[in-house]
Amino acid sequence: MKIAVIGAGAMGSIYGGRLSRHNEVYLIDTKQQIVDKINQSGLTLLEGDQELVFHPQARMSAKGIGPVDLVILFVKALYSRNALDAAKELFGEHTYVMTLQNGAGHEAVLGDYVKRSRIIIGTTEDNGSVLEPGKVRHGHGGAGYTNVGLLVPDESGILQKIKDSFDCCGFNVQIHQNIQKLIWHKLFTNVSLSALTGVLQVDMGFIAEDPHAWAAARRLIHEAVAVADQMDLDFDEEEIAEEVKRTSQGNPTGCTSIRADLRDGRKTEVDTISGAVVRAAHELGVDVPCHEMMVNLIHSMEARSRG
Amino acid sequence: MKIAVIGAGAMGSIYGGRLSRHNEVYLIDTKQQIVDKINQSGLTLLEGDQELVFHPQARMSAKGIGPVDLVILFVKALYSRNALDAAKELFGEHTYVMTLQNGAGHEAVLGDYVKRSRIIIGTTEDNGSVLEPGKVRHGHGGAGYTNVGLLVPDESGILQKIKDSFDCCGFNVQIHQNIQKLIWHKLFTNVSLSALTGVLQVDMGFIAEDPHAWAAARRLIHEAVAVADQMDLDFDEEEIAEEVKRTSQGNPTGCTSIRADLRDGRKTEVDTISGAVVRAAHELGVDVPCHEMMVNLIHSMEARSRG
Repeated sequence: MKIAVIGAGAMGSIYGGRLSRHNEVYLIDTKQQIVDKINQSGLTLLEGDQELVFHPQARMSAKGIGPVDLVILFVKALYSRNALDAAKELFGEHTYVMTLQNGAGHEAVLGDYVKRSRIIIGTTEDNGSVLEPGKVRHGHGGAGYTNVGLLVPDESGILQKIKDSFDCCGFNVQIHQNIQKLIWHKLFTNVSLSALTGVLQVDMGFIAEDPHAWAAARRLIHEAVAVADQMDLDFDEEEIAEEVKRTSQGNPTGCTSIRADLRDGRKTEVDTISGAVVRAAHELGVDVPCHEMMVNLIHSMEARSRG
Repeated sequence: MKIAVIGAGAMGSIYGGRLSRHNEVYLIDTKQQIVDKINQSGLTLLEGDQELVFHPQARMSAKGIGPVDLVILFVKALYSRNALDAAKELFGEHTYVMTLQNGAGHEAVLGDYVKRSRIIIGTTEDNGSVLEPGKVRHGHGGAGYTNVGLLVPDESGILQKIKDSFDCCGFNVQIHQNIQKLIWHKLFTNVSLSALTGVLQVDMGFIAEDPHAWAAARRLIHEAVAVADQMDLDFDEEEIAEEVKRTSQGNPTGCTSIRADLRDGRKTEVDTISGAVVRAAHELGVDVPCHEMMVNLIHSMEARSRG
């Protein structure tokens, strides 16, 4: 496959690097230093004790690449539109676009660039961190699932094609008929635990430990599950709450990305996390006052840092 | 009148000091240094260019004072119950108790110590700050109103008696038939502006200036006005919002007490501010999810500081 990965952060590097083993991969990033490093010395992934070097073609822009079979979007969601605007020449008649970005509702943005039937949404359990330009640690040895699905029935067999292609490069793709359920399942943790650790600037363990923080988390879970109910995604609120609690307790010193972004004065992905609940709720006529509050508080904290 | 003022902070000192001009006043505080200073050198109030020295009797406890005509409670609301427990011997058959504390709903606590007909609630527009033990600046030259009312019709004429007594000591008492309306009017600003500047740790001006912070304030005002509606206090939500906005814009660098308390790791008065809205809402069957969220967030931030 001819694949363009947009964004050479940790996740873009992991997918772009590994997929380049058996595919024609272009890794696009606006940072000159990263692009130069990859083109000169390759892209190094540290997996456990191993150091693997891959050779995707790094580019500063989509210029000259032409239409590809698959675009994988790995920029922070708030930059999706900018990234796609700059990458229009990648999209041909048969191009699919895949998002494994955090949060939910990315299909609304992608739908402005490709037909609905060509959007692949999903989640990844892989994670990683950039050690230096062109060098990325692939967390947990890359043992996580890549969960994918379409918004429509898969008549073309694209998901199986992607699974075959990805799996032989070291991924573990799972095809889902109801991918939204999986995305929302992951979302519950982000809209409660991540949003609250951001606003409160606390470690992940604090949320399950402090009764008031936990009461706030419970309310956010309650509202989000009510929205999912209206989407005919059938969740058990108590089970979800127990899962979120276990995630908090299991990673007591964990630092969420919203917390880190707010701490360091960066924009957060709240609009595709809590904001995704708010948008879905508005479409479905469900009240989510506390998620609206979280979105407003987090954007206020971003503005406070800027000004 | 024989008056006991509990709490010799800025406000207790202003009332205890000035009232001692024509009354038998006991000023009770648990801080030895303040009590000694007042008994040795008097209580100094700075009002504009003037330095006025008053001589209330300062005490570490209520012991030996006996029943008084009026108890004025000027401790932080979260210490009300402790303070009243320690001051039981002040309460005789004819004792009134007055609260001008921030927030609302203080009558629920006071009702455990005196009959409902003997509770005087209200607000004060005076303000001040402690400069050193026994020395307090009285803000704005003390030109503000002291607004008072009863929970029942005033058959005893106590409010007029208090007005006469206070006014000749330099206060400006206004008697209100519907004092709850005035208390809630003041509460709207506290539950929006104060609570949000606390959670966000920003100056007062930020709330009107930042669109997301303002959206959060608007929602909090909306919920609080809905509760007031159910209490048959008739407010115009748009007018209230405009007033809160003007307060934010008129004091751009102002620092609210909730913000200062959270910044300095102290407990806040949130339970009698946002918490007063939550309690009234629960009694009346009104939903106030965002006020519940603010109470939880602020208590979480208190716990974060402690731990």
